[in-house]
Amino acid sequence: MSRSGISLSESQRIAWLRLIRSDNVGPATFRELINHCGSAEKALDMLPELAKRGGAMKRIRVASIADAEREMEVAARHDGRFVAIGEPDYPPALRAIDGAPPLLAMCGSGETATRPTLGIVGARNASVAGAKFAAMVAGAAAGAGYTVASGLARGIDAAAHHASLKHGTLAALAGGLDRIYPPENADLYRRICTEGGVAISEMPYGWEPRARDFPRRNRLIAGSALAVVVVEAAMRSGSLITARLANEAGRLVLAVPGSPLDPRAQGSNGLIKQGAMIVCSPEDVLEALAPLSNLELPFSGDAGEEPEPEGEAPVEPAEDDRLRVAEALGPSPCEIDDLIRFTGVNAATVQLILLELDLAGRLARHPGGRISLT
Amino acid sequence: MSRSGISLSESQRIAWLRLIRSDNVGPATFRELINHCGSAEKALDMLPELAKRGGAMKRIRVASIADAEREMEVAARHDGRFVAIGEPDYPPALRAIDGAPPLLAMCGSGETATRPTLGIVGARNASVAGAKFAAMVAGAAAGAGYTVASGLARGIDAAAHHASLKHGTLAALAGGLDRIYPPENADLYRRICTEGGVAISEMPYGWEPRARDFPRRNRLIAGSALAVVVVEAAMRSGSLITARLANEAGRLVLAVPGSPLDPRAQGSNGLIKQGAMIVCSPEDVLEALAPLSNLELPFSGDAGEEPEPEGEAPVEPAEDDRLRVAEALGPSPCEIDDLIRFTGVNAATVQLILLELDLAGRLARHPGGRISLT
Repeated sequence: MSRSGISLSESQRIAWLRLIRSDNVGPATFRELINHCGSAEKALDMLPELAKRGGAMKRIRVASIADAEREMEVAARHDGRFVAIGEPDYPPALRAIDGAPPLLAMCGSGETATRPTLGIVGARNASVAGAKFAAMVAGAAAGAGYTVASGLARGIDAAAHHASLKHGTLAALAGGLDRIYPPENADLYRRICTEGGVAISEMPYGWEPRARDFPRRNRLIAGSALAVVVVEAAMRSGSLITARLANEAGRLVLAVPGSPLDPRAQGSNGLIKQGAMIVCSPEDVLEALAPLSNLELPFSGDAGEEPEPEGEAPVEPAEDDRLRVAEALGPSPCEIDDLIRFTGVNAATVQLILLELDLAGRLARHPGGRISLT
Repeated sequence: MSRSGISLSESQRIAWLRLIRSDNVGPATFRELINHCGSAEKALDMLPELAKRGGAMKRIRVASIADAEREMEVAARHDGRFVAIGEPDYPPALRAIDGAPPLLAMCGSGETATRPTLGIVGARNASVAGAKFAAMVAGAAAGAGYTVASGLARGIDAAAHHASLKHGTLAALAGGLDRIYPPENADLYRRICTEGGVAISEMPYGWEPRARDFPRRNRLIAGSALAVVVVEAAMRSGSLITARLANEAGRLVLAVPGSPLDPRAQGSNGLIKQGAMIVCSPEDVLEALAPLSNLELPFSGDAGEEPEPEGEAPVEPAEDDRLRVAEALGPSPCEIDDLIRFTGVNAATVQLILLELDLAGRLARHPGGRISLT
C-alpha cells in the first residue's frame, strides 16, 4: 500500500459531495451510479429520472451546489477537508472493503491516515487494567510505526488514542467532525487533529450521531486497520461488531483475555473461543502485524470517474424486464447472480434496474452484496 | 473404560510392593522385569544378578518381605491399601500412560477412582475470582458425574476438591499417604477419604514429599484425567508441568483466561496461545468432556504376570553384545530402535542389556522411551 492516487478537481469534489449527500445514495449506490453514468456530475443529472423509473412516488432530493459549498465552508472553518476514495490521503486499507465511503471528511494528517494501521477497541466502562493494557498495546504499535485507529469513545478507545497521540492516531467518528461525541473527549479530539493524528467521518458536518451510526462508524475502524485488537468487550457490545466487520473484511482479529467472571471479558474471551488470536503481551500484536504491513490489499475499485468497460451497453431497460426483476425480488435477500440467472435478463440491465429501485428507496442492500425489496 | 481387571493374590501383592520399592526399579523397569522374568517374585530373585551383569559396583538393595509387610501394616492403620495396575480400582485412564505406576497406595473409594475424571490444577496463591471459578467448574463437573482430580495444594487445588467433595474427588499426593502436605489441608484429606473421595500416591508410606516429587505427582493427575483445566498458572509453575504431561499423554488441555497484567494468568493465557481450549464457562468444560467420557483409551500394557510372547528367546547376552550396546550408548538420549539398528544386536537381547544397565543404575530413561547412559 502506498500513498498515491488521483486527485479530484474542485468541481468534481463538489459533485461527489452533492451525490453522496443526495437521497437514497449510499456507498454501493454511489459506485453503481459512477459506473453507469460515467461521472458524479452526470449521475446528479440522471438521479431524478432513474428514481422515477424505479417507482419513486415523489421527486428524489438531490443536494444542491449551494448545499455542498455550505458544507465545504463548515469543513474549512473546522480545518477539515473531503478526501475521495482513490485520493492519496484516503486510508488504503479502507479502500479495499465492500461499501467503502466514496468521500471522507478528514481533519489532521493525511500521512497518519495512510500508514499501516492497527485498530484497538473495547469497553467504555473499562477496568484500570484494561485501559492500561490497551495503552501498552497502542504505545508499542505506535512506536513501531503503526497508526492506531479507534472510535474516540470513553475507556479503551480514549486510552488507545492517548497512548498513540505522540506517534499518530486515527479517530473514526459516528457523527459530523463538528459534533464531537462524547463531549468530554473534545480536548482529545483537538489534540489528535493538531498533533499529527487524524479524524475521519463519512457523515455530514452538523450531523449529531445516533445509536445506529456507531456500527457504521465501527466499519471505518475495522476497514482502516490491518488488524483489530479487542480489549474488554461485553457480550453484544459495539466492539464485537467491530470485530465481526474486521473478520468479514478479512482483517486479523485479536482479543485480550480476562477473567470469565468479569462481564467485560466475556466478549473478548468469546472471540478467542471462536478463533481470534489471543493477546498475552504487546509483542504478540507486533508479531501478528509484521507479516501484514506489506500486504497488498485487494482493491474493490476506486469509483474513479471512468465508466467500467462493458460488453453490453447499458440502455434503458424494457418495461417487461423491469417488471420481471421487480417481481423476482422479495423481502428475502438474494444474490444478484441468482437474480440474473432466474430472470434471464442481461447482467447490465439487471444492475441498472436495481440502481433505479435503489434510488427510488425500494431496494435494501445486505452483507455479501445480497439485495431484497424493502 | 470399565471397572474390571485381574486381582493379585496377597503373596503376589507383597512381591509387587517389594519389587517397586527395590533400588533402581521405576515403573518402566518394573514392566521390563515382569516381561523378562515372568513374575515379580522371579524378578526379585534375579535382581542382584541382572544388576551385577549391568556393571553395578555393589549389591543392589532388594526390599525384603518384612519391609513390604511393614508398609502394608502402616497402610492398613491409615485405612490404605495397594492397588496394582490392571486391578479394578486402578484409575483406568492412568493405566494408559507411559510409565504408569505399577502399584498405587490408595485410600477411599475405588468407585471414585475409576470414574471418568477431570483434572483441575492451578496457582497456590490463587485470586478470589480464580478460586471461585475453579469451584464452579469442579462443582459442575462433579455434578455431571465426573471425578475431579487435583493435588491437594492450597488455592485452586483446595477449591476444586472442596467443590467436588460431595460427588467424589481424587487427590494425588507427592509423598506417602501418611505424610499429608500441606498440613493445613489434613482435614480436607480426611474428608476426601471418608466422604466418598479417594487419595492416591505412588510413594511409600512415611515418605516426606520433596520438591522433585511434585512433577511426578502431577503426572498422576494428568494421567488419571481425560482432560485437565488449568486455572491461574504463573509462568514456570507446576500447573504448566501438569498441562504438558497431559498433552504428552494425549489428554485434552483447557485453560481459564485472565488479564495479561496478572502474573497468575500468564501461564494459562500462554497455554491458550499454544492451542489449549479456552474456558469461558463451566459449560465449556462439560461440552469438551462429553465426547471423551466414553473413549476407550489405548492401554499400554497392564504389567500382568505373563511374560510377553516373543519370537526371540531372551537368553543371557554374549559379553561382546553387552560391550557393543554399552559403547553405542552415550550421554545423549537415543531411541531404542536406533540402538538396535546401529548395533545389529537382536531386539530382545538389547532390551535385556538395557534392563541390566538400568538395574545397575547406569541407564537414564527419557520421555518418548529414549535412553542414555548416566
